[in-house]
Amino acid sequence: MNMKDIIGKKRYGGTLTEEEIKFFVDGVTDKSIPDYQASALLMAIVLNGMNKEEMTCLTMAMAHSGTILDLSFADDITVDKHSTGGVGDKVTILLLPLLATFGIKTVKLSGRGLGFTGGTVDKFGSIEGFRYEIPASEFPYYLKKCGMVISGPSPNLAPADKILYALRDVTGTVDSIPLIASSIMSKKLAGGADVIVLDVTCGSGAYMKTFDRAHELAQAMIDIGNGAGKKTVAVITDMDQPLGGSCGNTLEMQEVLRTFAGKGNTDVVEVVCRIAAECIKAAGKANGLSGDDLLYACATRLTDGSALSKFAELIASQGGDLKDKVNPVFKDLPFEAMRVTAPCDGYVYSIKTDAIGNAANHLGAGRKTVNDQIDYGAGIKFYAKRGDRVRKGDVLCSLCHGTKAELADEVLFDVMEEVLAAYEIREEAPEEVPVVMEVLS
Amino acid sequence: MNMKDIIGKKRYGGTLTEEEIKFFVDGVTDKSIPDYQASALLMAIVLNGMNKEEMTCLTMAMAHSGTILDLSFADDITVDKHSTGGVGDKVTILLLPLLATFGIKTVKLSGRGLGFTGGTVDKFGSIEGFRYEIPASEFPYYLKKCGMVISGPSPNLAPADKILYALRDVTGTVDSIPLIASSIMSKKLAGGADVIVLDVTCGSGAYMKTFDRAHELAQAMIDIGNGAGKKTVAVITDMDQPLGGSCGNTLEMQEVLRTFAGKGNTDVVEVVCRIAAECIKAAGKANGLSGDDLLYACATRLTDGSALSKFAELIASQGGDLKDKVNPVFKDLPFEAMRVTAPCDGYVYSIKTDAIGNAANHLGAGRKTVNDQIDYGAGIKFYAKRGDRVRKGDVLCSLCHGTKAELADEVLFDVMEEVLAAYEIREEAPEEVPVVMEVLS
Repeated sequence: MNMKDIIGKKRYGGTLTEEEIKFFVDGVTDKSIPDYQASALLMAIVLNGMNKEEMTCLTMAMAHSGTILDLSFADDITVDKHSTGGVGDKVTILLLPLLATFGIKTVKLSGRGLGFTGGTVDKFGSIEGFRYEIPASEFPYYLKKCGMVISGPSPNLAPADKILYALRDVTGTVDSIPLIASSIMSKKLAGGADVIVLDVTCGSGAYMKTFDRAHELAQAMIDIGNGAGKKTVAVITDMDQPLGGSCGNTLEMQEVLRTFAGKGNTDVVEVVCRIAAECIKAAGKANGLSGDDLLYACATRLTDGSALSKFAELIASQGGDLKDKVNPVFKDLPFEAMRVTAPCDGYVYSIKTDAIGNAANHLGAGRKTVNDQIDYGAGIKFYAKRGDRVRKGDVLCSLCHGTKAELADEVLFDVMEEVLAAYEIREEAPEEVPVVMEVLS
Repeated sequence: MNMKDIIGKKRYGGTLTEEEIKFFVDGVTDKSIPDYQASALLMAIVLNGMNKEEMTCLTMAMAHSGTILDLSFADDITVDKHSTGGVGDKVTILLLPLLATFGIKTVKLSGRGLGFTGGTVDKFGSIEGFRYEIPASEFPYYLKKCGMVISGPSPNLAPADKILYALRDVTGTVDSIPLIASSIMSKKLAGGADVIVLDVTCGSGAYMKTFDRAHELAQAMIDIGNGAGKKTVAVITDMDQPLGGSCGNTLEMQEVLRTFAGKGNTDVVEVVCRIAAECIKAAGKANGLSGDDLLYACATRLTDGSALSKFAELIASQGGDLKDKVNPVFKDLPFEAMRVTAPCDGYVYSIKTDAIGNAANHLGAGRKTVNDQIDYGAGIKFYAKRGDRVRKGDVLCSLCHGTKAELADEVLFDVMEEVLAAYEIREEAPEEVPVVMEVLS
């Protein structure tokens, strides 16, 4: 078997065998295949595609290029959740404690954020003392303690994916459903959970800009998950505006606390409860509940203090400081430095969500390069969202930085311009878009 | 400008600008662009194509990556000829002396053959004393002497093409009309001739297997040549059977001598005269002749001793030994070691020409790797060709090796099997195919 023939086969639109795909992934991992051959094959895959079986083989080969976590110590069904990312996405932080109230154990493996606002571990990082670099060997200890563990970058999971991703990043081969799906799923399979739940976001703040592309990616990942013998469910959610009432690390943790107190934004609550219901069904923990009854049970436990108490357990379990046994102690708090107001009367017709994400980043909420420091207090609070009627001068949103941070006025003014340009205000109201657009399994 | 964006543009089917193409070729030449990015772009070009302007820019950039020969010292129109290769292709050897009889100066830059039978310089290499590694600085001396020069591999012409070809060879990106056309034409443009004549072969013994693909390649090269301001003509010729009566180095030189003596195969004569006529017209040397009159003049000069005497001048000019002032002294002569006979009555319906080329190679006529020694006497003499009626036991062809060489009986028997399998004999006669299938300019 040689790489030139494998490239040639895909170049002519052929279907690669399991052996050929394994040869490729193994060769990439042990560096016996040169980068220039790997990138040629990647481009051929980008342009000629892969079928279900090829994607599953690629995913399995990448998953098996490193450690596969063994979560059997949990002695129960375990769930892992992945989101394809967005702005204001605090779903995981609400979901894990909610699932815990149903007795579902979760091992959440998360990367640090880059671009846009921080990743999930960065949001937890806004809490004093919270440790998220947990070695896999300690997962049993944490799962036993509170049924949940959230852990940052894991160098040993799917090393082939890391190598290939770095190559894709510089060779114009990132945008490909088979390659994106297998990259995400290889890490999830290596994570070892029994149930995989995928939140595929779509819209201007997501990698997938259209519903059709999001559906295609969701279906590809479900095909891979099923092909690998894992229960896999996916929801497609709207990311054509920021999710919920804020984006930024401390801001979103505060919003999480408001949501646990029953004062959360309805879009966030809906996404969390719909995903939770799918997880609970897939894990066989619904106890006879289904449909609206199950959703109602989720909504109740999310806001009646049950989830909040699990949330406090998670924080405490990983070393985070709590006051009054529930409220996290934050490293820094947001200071509302500037309000952005509507330039005219009308309806908020659309919000360019990627621009909002970049604006939050410019305020200090995210990283431009991996070694940047985050200002945990930085971010944006949304007062008007899509479909809201506003009058000239009404507050659309406010720009925040941490109380300990300093931000030059020029930066604030520049960000204000960015945010204003992201808000489109029209005379007519936009069509309503459901926040959960599709559930697939 | 950065390579990632250029790859991304082509990945989405965009059109690259002259600046982008030049950035790519310059970066490949000075090694500032890593191979893995170059190969990703090559694969994107293979699958998404290039338009006329892009091909011309790529060709010009590759041509200008090294020396561009200045042939103005010739003080007259100069012609360069290229063939996309085949089995038994001795056209160049006949064409150069014939053109010289019309006062046309030719600088033929030729590579050594690899696979199949030897290249044009290898055929001249069968002559004692013939030197074909002529430095470009000496071209004026040779052109003045006899109006022709034939020179082997020239390291300074289009170095970017050499780098890219080596990369294409290992990344499954050889088969692409824009990349093949620009590779060939970059070397021709760097060669500096005023008129470029292209023999695009098609069929089982050629790189282009079908007429449509050959036409596409010919058209692409003409577009590039015209885009670069060069007179460019192309003929598409049949390579669905070996050309002429033999393949092998000394064998073909002997066939050339028979052709000069009026005893050549008609297919060879036709191809040579048709190409010569196009060259003569393009060079403005037809002296009022056209159509059949011009072809007749070519056929006459080819066989009346005029071309032969120019041929002898060329041999002598580059140091080749001649006896009787006309006949080359060969390093070795062919010995007919085995005859291959028809296994049944019928018509020779088709000849798998690539298999014949490989068989000749196995006899020692060509190289498997660049450093292999050639047996100049090795090759195959054809007694029956496509359309010929044969009876069981009639000789189809004979297998030769040099009188100084030794060949194990097993090799001869294996080659006989190969050759027999390449000849298809049927009860019905095949359709007649013209040897010159199209002329484009």
